[in-house]
Amino acid sequence: MADSEALSSLAGDPMAVEALLQAVFGIVVDEAIQKGTSASEKVCEWKEPEELKQLLDLELRSQGESQEQILERCRAVIHYSVKTGHPRFFNQLFSGLDPHALAGRIITESLNTSQYTYEIAPVFVLMEEEVLRKLRALVGWSSGDGIFCPGGSISNMYAVNLARYQRYPDCKQRGLRTLPPLALFTSKECHYSIQKGAAFLGLGTDSVRVVKADERGRMVPEDLERQISMAEAEGAVPFLVSATCGTTVLGAFDPLEAIADVCQRHGLWLHVDAAWGGSVLLSQTHRHLLDGIQRADSVAWNPHKLLAAGLQCSALLLQDTSNLLKRCHGSQASYLFQQDKFYDVELDTGDKVVQCGRRVDCLKLWLMWKAQGSQGLERRIDQAFALARYLVEEMKKREGFELVMEPEFVNVCFWFVPPSLRGKQDSPDYHKRLSTVAPVLKERMVKEGSMMIGYQPHGTRGNFFRVVVANPALTRADIDFLLNELERLGQDL
Amino acid sequence: MADSEALSSLAGDPMAVEALLQAVFGIVVDEAIQKGTSASEKVCEWKEPEELKQLLDLELRSQGESQEQILERCRAVIHYSVKTGHPRFFNQLFSGLDPHALAGRIITESLNTSQYTYEIAPVFVLMEEEVLRKLRALVGWSSGDGIFCPGGSISNMYAVNLARYQRYPDCKQRGLRTLPPLALFTSKECHYSIQKGAAFLGLGTDSVRVVKADERGRMVPEDLERQISMAEAEGAVPFLVSATCGTTVLGAFDPLEAIADVCQRHGLWLHVDAAWGGSVLLSQTHRHLLDGIQRADSVAWNPHKLLAAGLQCSALLLQDTSNLLKRCHGSQASYLFQQDKFYDVELDTGDKVVQCGRRVDCLKLWLMWKAQGSQGLERRIDQAFALARYLVEEMKKREGFELVMEPEFVNVCFWFVPPSLRGKQDSPDYHKRLSTVAPVLKERMVKEGSMMIGYQPHGTRGNFFRVVVANPALTRADIDFLLNELERLGQDL
Repeated sequence: MADSEALSSLAGDPMAVEALLQAVFGIVVDEAIQKGTSASEKVCEWKEPEELKQLLDLELRSQGESQEQILERCRAVIHYSVKTGHPRFFNQLFSGLDPHALAGRIITESLNTSQYTYEIAPVFVLMEEEVLRKLRALVGWSSGDGIFCPGGSISNMYAVNLARYQRYPDCKQRGLRTLPPLALFTSKECHYSIQKGAAFLGLGTDSVRVVKADERGRMVPEDLERQISMAEAEGAVPFLVSATCGTTVLGAFDPLEAIADVCQRHGLWLHVDAAWGGSVLLSQTHRHLLDGIQRADSVAWNPHKLLAAGLQCSALLLQDTSNLLKRCHGSQASYLFQQDKFYDVELDTGDKVVQCGRRVDCLKLWLMWKAQGSQGLERRIDQAFALARYLVEEMKKREGFELVMEPEFVNVCFWFVPPSLRGKQDSPDYHKRLSTVAPVLKERMVKEGSMMIGYQPHGTRGNFFRVVVANPALTRADIDFLLNELERLGQDL
Repeated sequence: MADSEALSSLAGDPMAVEALLQAVFGIVVDEAIQKGTSASEKVCEWKEPEELKQLLDLELRSQGESQEQILERCRAVIHYSVKTGHPRFFNQLFSGLDPHALAGRIITESLNTSQYTYEIAPVFVLMEEEVLRKLRALVGWSSGDGIFCPGGSISNMYAVNLARYQRYPDCKQRGLRTLPPLALFTSKECHYSIQKGAAFLGLGTDSVRVVKADERGRMVPEDLERQISMAEAEGAVPFLVSATCGTTVLGAFDPLEAIADVCQRHGLWLHVDAAWGGSVLLSQTHRHLLDGIQRADSVAWNPHKLLAAGLQCSALLLQDTSNLLKRCHGSQASYLFQQDKFYDVELDTGDKVVQCGRRVDCLKLWLMWKAQGSQGLERRIDQAFALARYLVEEMKKREGFELVMEPEFVNVCFWFVPPSLRGKQDSPDYHKRLSTVAPVLKERMVKEGSMMIGYQPHGTRGNFFRVVVANPALTRADIDFLLNELERLGQDL
């Protein structure tokens, strides 16, 4: 009978399972962890898509493959992947490889459970509660609620959905059609997820009123007042302001106290998108950047970014103590959230979310925090600020680097001005030509695999680089390398 | 200077990092993989929440801990967690521990990248495309689109959002207020995410019209017709039908051909929520259950369920070739999706989703598929059906097991009738007393750690057990154990 014995892929042989996993783990340690974080190795192994498809042999066939082939595939996948833990990966708002967080992620994967009930996730229900409590305490709240979401975009959506539900509880059942037009406010520097969320939630992108930002990328509270008045004059009902702590490109922090004053005056929900900047709350030296955050109604904070907890680790924190999350999102599915369980069913947190199955995202952060302590994490933040400052000061000593502005965070935005353009600031096509430099250098660094830095146009500014100083393993030598490498790559331009 | 040397938690010492990870991996292999899948070990180690909090010492403190303490914590986390890969875990629509999928998950975690651009996820952009192509081919489509989502609930939401956008592209910008009231249709047996999604998307739960199901849990197409007429008569605009392949409790498959006929007649988007049942498409023997699925506009399919790929692995598949996903969800963020890149920016798939950072969910499925081949996966599905059938036949041989119905899938729903209730079917409080049995047995099995089976009330039926036969490592001996154990646990009732 086909069903008389176990059909696990390794024929139920625990020794074979262990041998496979030991072999894979050996490859992971050698290729992803050792080489993947070594400055003497490439940060990426660029291949054109068509060539890479051939190299990977992606097709899924009828017949399975031998263990030897599988291990070869594991090596190839790692080899051709970008090493985001590498000290020359400056490309994204996450970087670095924390070994304790990785340990937590491996345990999470081996346990493979869902965060919805105490029944099947007892450790993680309690752990999530404790981690959220700790994050809330750093915001300045002694009580409240919260949940881990699959990324900051969805955390931001949750905040918008909660704010509209709090004001119009009927909308859960009756939808938006019966409501007046709603208006939410955020600065032009906000993350694009606010627009995406407004569309997804049925509000439409028109409901997002864009508030001016100053030259450093911070929301202008006076313009927020003006936008609120304008929206009201047009018959819309303002209900939420989304302020940003750590904007994506410039790393700006909106002035929360002034914005909170406006929200208080108008009775608006204050959401703070601190996906990027939230981790600064751990630093006694720098947390003043978020002064006023304790006045928020909700905060989105992604420890997978500056704390390097690993994708994804994104918390939505709430000041609410009225069970708003569950009231807004709950649907009391009787097959999962039975009320006649033998334990306190308040521990079944799954009905707080719009997902059903939900990954465990707390362990990686908890284990790293246990290993580092808040002090260790604080040093990490302070070091990132110090290294960003070092980068800025070194740039000033060199020809060919033009800062977009003095950074207040760890995003360092600048143009590399190649030799042929130096001293030509007054020529009419200077900015146009300067804007073509970053894409060329990006192509060169990626094809050599020496480094990765993001670039973008921004408002009226042409393409400039944004170095993100986030990897906790960075040293001054890596920063020196970055500057030297840009000069080397751009010397003929 | 604090920033003169690397501040990784293990002081930038690659040997120490490797030693930590090796030690953690050893614990994972021993505790989670070997003991966690061994029938001679407990499936769970029940503790009351307050006691568990003490045992775990969850508090996050200023000072970090020693490596020895951290390893002890890793052991405790695993020890007190539920072993979802255990052969006596029948509790959820996922179970089992596939070693190749786990290998893929460990590699994914070690690479820690986001799926949004070819730039930072070259391997995974191409791999996701290939895996989605393969899944679409099994649905019966030679072209189309798709994306991995954080769970089936969000896949279902995507389908609803795409359907309304296709009909009213203006709603992305202008929202729902300018639209007529919309109506979507699904059976009363559908997953609760349809209701949650309607609320979240701003449609409101009232927009969900509940279609009757027959006694086996399958949508009644004639009632769908009736509901559509009623909605139209009330002034609503029908736009989508969500059919289910593999309902959560009963495991029913809606009659897709008949439903597709209705959709065709009325010009409605047909979404198929095959989160649970989609994997049956791999079986030549059983795929007839999904006949007609090729007529759908969208399909949600979670390989983390019956294929044991690991949470989360949830694909939304589309027949669309007009770039609907990107048009509906895109916002062209210039810092991420620069158009002047040196490669084909069509490979930057991140703008297809409402998330920004998105986990890599394709590798675990791809690697398992490479190892097993489609044939190996097919055998797995066929074995699950065969063992579910074995369970049913064995139940019929024993006193004390009353089937809710003959299953057509691998959900086996039944009452355990304890000795004191046998032969008392005609007594007036029989059903009420029978309904109290499952919660008592559940408490006993969990506290002993011998087994986990879910139960629920359902419609007018009192609590009954739902055994999910999904773990690929199951044997007939495990099924025999299940029956014996229920008899043992319930002998005094």
